[in-house]
Amino acid sequence: MSFARLDRAPGYRLLAEAVEREILEGRLKPGERLPTETEFATQFAVNRSTVREGIRLLEESGLVRREEGRRLFVARPETSALAQRMSHAMVMHEVTFRELWETMMALEPMAAELAAANATPEQIWALAANLTETRAVLADRQNVTRLDIAFHALVAEASGNRALLLSRDALGRLFYPAFEAVISGLPAAPERLLTAHTAIYEAIRTGDAAEARRWMERHIMDFKRGFERMGLDLAAPIALPTGQEKTK
Amino acid sequence: MSFARLDRAPGYRLLAEAVEREILEGRLKPGERLPTETEFATQFAVNRSTVREGIRLLEESGLVRREEGRRLFVARPETSALAQRMSHAMVMHEVTFRELWETMMALEPMAAELAAANATPEQIWALAANLTETRAVLADRQNVTRLDIAFHALVAEASGNRALLLSRDALGRLFYPAFEAVISGLPAAPERLLTAHTAIYEAIRTGDAAEARRWMERHIMDFKRGFERMGLDLAAPIALPTGQEKTK
Repeated sequence: MSFARLDRAPGYRLLAEAVEREILEGRLKPGERLPTETEFATQFAVNRSTVREGIRLLEESGLVRREEGRRLFVARPETSALAQRMSHAMVMHEVTFRELWETMMALEPMAAELAAANATPEQIWALAANLTETRAVLADRQNVTRLDIAFHALVAEASGNRALLLSRDALGRLFYPAFEAVISGLPAAPERLLTAHTAIYEAIRTGDAAEARRWMERHIMDFKRGFERMGLDLAAPIALPTGQEKTK
Repeated sequence: MSFARLDRAPGYRLLAEAVEREILEGRLKPGERLPTETEFATQFAVNRSTVREGIRLLEESGLVRREEGRRLFVARPETSALAQRMSHAMVMHEVTFRELWETMMALEPMAAELAAANATPEQIWALAANLTETRAVLADRQNVTRLDIAFHALVAEASGNRALLLSRDALGRLFYPAFEAVISGLPAAPERLLTAHTAIYEAIRTGDAAEARRWMERHIMDFKRGFERMGLDLAAPIALPTGQEKTK
């Protein structure tokens, strides 16, 4: 006679899930303190090492943070850490440039359209500063790429839509760095990029949502054209951009 | 004289990051075995508890999995766990229904358009089965909601685009459950939903990308209208759907 293997989740995971539920269902709110390790151990009737591991899971999920190495409190997960995880998953699943491009064709025009409606004066100012800097470094391809990444992130932020922001962040991290080759290889590329960014900026500044969308669409289309003109393979898996992984 | 506090990452995190880099840059490939705990401890010159904690982080990130409680190997992160984390982050950041809806207006029509181009016969068959079932349970609002969630997930899958799939998964988990109130409250809602789903299915089946996009746009517009007609607040933060958190 044989028994099936008991497939029970380990104690630290059960503890983490119980606390997670309290947080997600709003019974524990951001900023509120959590019980101490000793209190957790008593409440859940487990030993302290189980508590410690459970808390570590919660810290990793971003739902719990530690103040100065001491008391624990409920936190909102940092979206940049999540976006990084998502971009890692896409690299591991060998997502192709075409897949990224198609998704950006959905998200970026919507971001521009919403930015035209919702951008604050400070956000418009930041876009203007980005344009000025891009104009100044136009011959320096690496800097143009860096400013291109920043421009699109600023537009997304100006959309005032955090669901959109979070979705595109993971994609933007992989998508725009891939164009350094295009910007470096096609002599007309930086000038075209600047023209598009200027038009998108003007449409956002004047609150012209349809024009912002139209220019962003054209701009993202242009990226694919540049990619093809360089003889790059749309079906190739996207790689992790170099030098981007230092900020965790 | 006082020294600034040394702000060095803990050893287990440094270990996890070093292994993560090997994996993400492709020097360790999915399916490959990792060193044992003892080997790690020797290589990194750390004690085994540090190794164990580092490995737990890697397991949490989904980049490493354990075979039958024993040897570790490189894995591809499961995207559903990530999508769940993203949806949790959105709940914690009090993302509103309007934000979700705007992002779905970007992603869902693109998914339908791509599905018309890329759906396999099996995927078309699954959509047909979903429609048949929806027709059969049209008076049962809870089941209609469940089938609605499944229909949109099937369309996204049929797009063949994993970047899109991952982006919309997190949103879909929050978005469609929110409509149970609409489907329950508006007598015409289930019939309208079935009409739209049928048209989207027909467009996908016949490979008509423009029609698939057009119907999906109309369908997602309709969701917002239903929401407003029910007197629900578009600016209210979206809640975690009940009963959805059991699958982790």
